[in-house]
Amino acid sequence: MLVLFTDFGLQGPYIGQVAAVLQQHAPGVPVINLFSDLPPFDIQAAAYLLPAYTRGFPPGTVFVCVVDPGVGGARPGAVLCADGRWYVGPNEGLFAPLARRAGDIRCWQLPGPAAGASPSFHGRDVFAPVAGRLARNGRYEGEEVATSELDWPDWPDDLWRVVYIDRFGNAITGLRGSMVEADAVFNVSGHSLRHARTFSDVGEGEAFWYENSSGLVEFAVNRGRADVELGLNTGSEFSRGDG
Amino acid sequence: MLVLFTDFGLQGPYIGQVAAVLQQHAPGVPVINLFSDLPPFDIQAAAYLLPAYTRGFPPGTVFVCVVDPGVGGARPGAVLCADGRWYVGPNEGLFAPLARRAGDIRCWQLPGPAAGASPSFHGRDVFAPVAGRLARNGRYEGEEVATSELDWPDWPDDLWRVVYIDRFGNAITGLRGSMVEADAVFNVSGHSLRHARTFSDVGEGEAFWYENSSGLVEFAVNRGRADVELGLNTGSEFSRGDG
Amino acid sequence: MLVLFTDFGLQGPYIGQVAAVLQQHAPGVPVINLFSDLPPFDIQAAAYLLPAYTRGFPPGTVFVCVVDPGVGGARPGAVLCADGRWYVGPNEGLFAPLARRAGDIRCWQLPGPAAGASPSFHGRDVFAPVAGRLARNGRYEGEEVATSELDWPDWPDDLWRVVYIDRFGNAITGLRGSMVEADAVFNVSGHSLRHARTFSDVGEGEAFWYENSSGLVEFAVNRGRADVELGLNTGSEFSRGDG
Repeated sequence: MLVLFTDFGLQGPYIGQVAAVLQQHAPGVPVINLFSDLPPFDIQAAAYLLPAYTRGFPPGTVFVCVVDPGVGGARPGAVLCADGRWYVGPNEGLFAPLARRAGDIRCWQLPGPAAGASPSFHGRDVFAPVAGRLARNGRYEGEEVATSELDWPDWPDDLWRVVYIDRFGNAITGLRGSMVEADAVFNVSGHSLRHARTFSDVGEGEAFWYENSSGLVEFAVNRGRADVELGLNTGSEFSRGDG
Repeated sequence: MLVLFTDFGLQGPYIGQVAAVLQQHAPGVPVINLFSDLPPFDIQAAAYLLPAYTRGFPPGTVFVCVVDPGVGGARPGAVLCADGRWYVGPNEGLFAPLARRAGDIRCWQLPGPAAGASPSFHGRDVFAPVAGRLARNGRYEGEEVATSELDWPDWPDDLWRVVYIDRFGNAITGLRGSMVEADAVFNVSGHSLRHARTFSDVGEGEAFWYENSSGLVEFAVNRGRADVELGLNTGSEFSRGDG
Repeated sequence: MLVLFTDFGLQGPYIGQVAAVLQQHAPGVPVINLFSDLPPFDIQAAAYLLPAYTRGFPPGTVFVCVVDPGVGGARPGAVLCADGRWYVGPNEGLFAPLARRAGDIRCWQLPGPAAGASPSFHGRDVFAPVAGRLARNGRYEGEEVATSELDWPDWPDDLWRVVYIDRFGNAITGLRGSMVEADAVFNVSGHSLRHARTFSDVGEGEAFWYENSSGLVEFAVNRGRADVELGLNTGSEFSRGDG
């Protein structure tokens, strides 16, 4: 399976152009859009979403991961094999939390773009061909490098910020639910939010936090929009509350 | 063929996560997004779109139908086989108009969520695995129940409301074109709308109603936005006009 | 490969309905959405995007091209084979720049809609069945016509207008980069824009033009939105600047 994890946007031709390259290199392998609308240019938000949203995929899945505000710059891209899943993309921090949490990981440095590659669309011309060949061959041969190349040491293990607002206004954070106790209270834009198991466990219009279906702490309002009612955006910080 | 009919939104990971589960359970079966942006939480709007937008699919098609504001609650989901097509989803009214109109229908009650299923994402963890296995096996074995379980007796046979606004601002209603005469006039937000066969039959900027390509009455403005020019939203009511 | 190039919108059922018809006529052929959000009703904008965004696809690719404000009118649709790629859609100018630039081109006129075709959705009922059969059979048999039928003689070879604004606010134009020298300066809404190779070659917040990854002149701002900062919309004109 080939999976796209990008900030390209659902609009426009970019997702389709990448999918077409993948199909040509790996005929018959299904291509799935996991995220097409990651917060634009926000590598850190994407980096904390990546391990949570890719852990459920089977071994052998190949992820094309592109949030690349510096496209065309000099830094080489990376290929990872982490716990049996493959990841291809620019190495600007995007893989840092994933690499720290992986049990078994190897890393390779991509060669520079081939002649004729567009300097503004490495997703299509650099990363997709590598990912397609990986999906077909199941292995990568190239320059293996230390996995420390993937780390961004200043970044925390969990990110106490909102990293994505979904269609319903739910605010997904970079904090794993498994890192806090179930009776934790969070201070979110001046509101104290308590834990609930899920939406149907609280009253209509009530705000709460829960561990979402991908393991991250998420702020929500039952049948309402948490982003509007709590004043949240991608990047909003929160902290532990008084309880 | 596996077909998604949901309010999950095009944004975010949800459609991709469901598609990935479907691919794992039914390798090689194409997955199509029919509706990803049904009006959020609006079961009734979705219920009147469902029979109109699924009737054209071939027998054996499996629809994953999820509009589920009460996700995580106690009510069990349902599997239907109606006129040779399969439907899987929460049983909160979504299948009521479809069931009333079906010539040949059977219904089964789903067991409760398996251990490990997320209480907030039954689309991925409960309905998609069932749908994937259905697409592969072509049959369902479980607890068959009376099809009366699917009905919402208070709901009308046709819904005289706008149930969806499309990209062009056209307003799709829950009323079948076959239930009204072609010279019917509708009173829509104070405007009297007459019938036309299609857009090119009226002048630029003119509002009209027509039976859309899926059999529903739709309000439109040739090369304009009916939602803006007539002041329509999902849920807007209309009535028979004076002619 | 079957590729959709339309203004149907990502929202709503239209893309899924067309994809389902394609799957039925060409089982196993992948279906890719290249553009689903072409500027609504804007045939000319789409016409200048078409050759740029389809030239990278392999021979035998079949494009379903629909921007059709006059759907239901009398003019017949067209099938083209241009440089080994197939195109199906309404013949209202959409294929004019493509046809002028093609080295090798043939053209057929489609018969009128079959009985039962919806007058408002030729994409699903007229063009998709033809495209699906083309993808399966690799040839078209019908009434061949002169390729001059495809031309719109009043249209220029390149269009000095913005034809698409992408998710990042970049403004794609109808002008090929190969038609201007690299030191060209453009006057864009009162700003003089100079050339850069790509985003990382200019400072943050700086506006520039570059030849984008599909060969068109594009106006951009490094880590900013060109549409907002330069006041651009689809249709905005520009001219050669003083340098």
